[in-house]
Amino acid sequence: MIQYPTKKKTSDQKGISTRNRGMSLEDDLNLTNEYYRIHELANVHKKPTPVQVVSVSYPSRNQAKIVEAYYKTPSTTDYNGVTQGVYFDFEAKEVTDQQRFSLQRIHQHQIDHLRDIVKHMGCAFLIIRFVKHDVTFFVPFDKFDQEMKSTQRRSIPLSWFQSECAIIQHGFTPPLHYLPHVHQWIKEKYEK
Amino acid sequence: MIQYPTKKKTSDQKGISTRNRGMSLEDDLNLTNEYYRIHELANVHKKPTPVQVVSVSYPSRNQAKIVEAYYKTPSTTDYNGVTQGVYFDFEAKEVTDQQRFSLQRIHQHQIDHLRDIVKHMGCAFLIIRFVKHDVTFFVPFDKFDQEMKSTQRRSIPLSWFQSECAIIQHGFTPPLHYLPHVHQWIKEKYEK
Repeated sequence: MIQYPTKKKTSDQKGISTRNRGMSLEDDLNLTNEYYRIHELANVHKKPTPVQVVSVSYPSRNQAKIVEAYYKTPSTTDYNGVTQGVYFDFEAKEVTDQQRFSLQRIHQHQIDHLRDIVKHMGCAFLIIRFVKHDVTFFVPFDKFDQEMKSTQRRSIPLSWFQSECAIIQHGFTPPLHYLPHVHQWIKEKYEK
Repeated sequence: MIQYPTKKKTSDQKGISTRNRGMSLEDDLNLTNEYYRIHELANVHKKPTPVQVVSVSYPSRNQAKIVEAYYKTPSTTDYNGVTQGVYFDFEAKEVTDQQRFSLQRIHQHQIDHLRDIVKHMGCAFLIIRFVKHDVTFFVPFDKFDQEMKSTQRRSIPLSWFQSECAIIQHGFTPPLHYLPHVHQWIKEKYEK
């Protein structure tokens, strides 16, 4: 059953799970996206890190071995995909600070890219996990962008996420079921 | 300029432009996608080729040099993007054969991926250029898939593309204006 997100909260504790976490946010997302593919809920992929290849050698006829290459700065976010025909695109960040998300963590090219997605009516968001609290937020990018523009601070406090954003449930299969939030967004946007 | 003898063409010429071509399909698409981004018509990117990095050295403090890596088979197509909120996804192929597109040119994982996009109501297509004729087709994937399934042949003839698919106009800016075909697809699909 798909559990649609709600913003109702009763205590500060809500959504803070007590499970033992051993996996990174990226692991959780990879497993979740795999689950979505298998169960035909969405098609979403992590984009490969772009690499500038300088030199390749051919130790055998069918094998190309890259012997000199450099990481390039990606021009986009890490993940994009499709569900219900709608394009969605997000960046995922783990935060070790207990109280705030530093805005230095999100790069200008990622901001530009996500703004562009909003412009094209795609669903752009961030998935932000406060590791110490073991809580993960679904952060619609337009909301986040508004907050960024209106604040003088160089960070956004945990309390803002708690009051403005939905919590993504941690689970077993899938580990991080963020898709209901995307569907909710689509519903609100397109009144589907 | 030496004019090599050519076969006279009369009515077969449909859609065959006479411009001097110097650019590959990939170059055309990169410029076109850049044009779309700048003019805010769509956000579309070529996915980087995935590379399995085995070993990295650090010749200086801020530089990571990849010294052993291998190309991985991509699990998706080359391009995806968003326009009007809708996800679109395509693979581009240049064909040197004058009369047919060999089905070996499109890999099973690409077929699986595009089928999946169709399932999720995204706009999945191929852009196929017959280089010798200098003509480029917009090939909706569901149509192509149907033809693949129904044919016993290992290729699809040029004539099928000519009768079933729209021609993408070659131009200057952008060099390959495929987006109107995506918009048309969206219009038909969603009656927007």
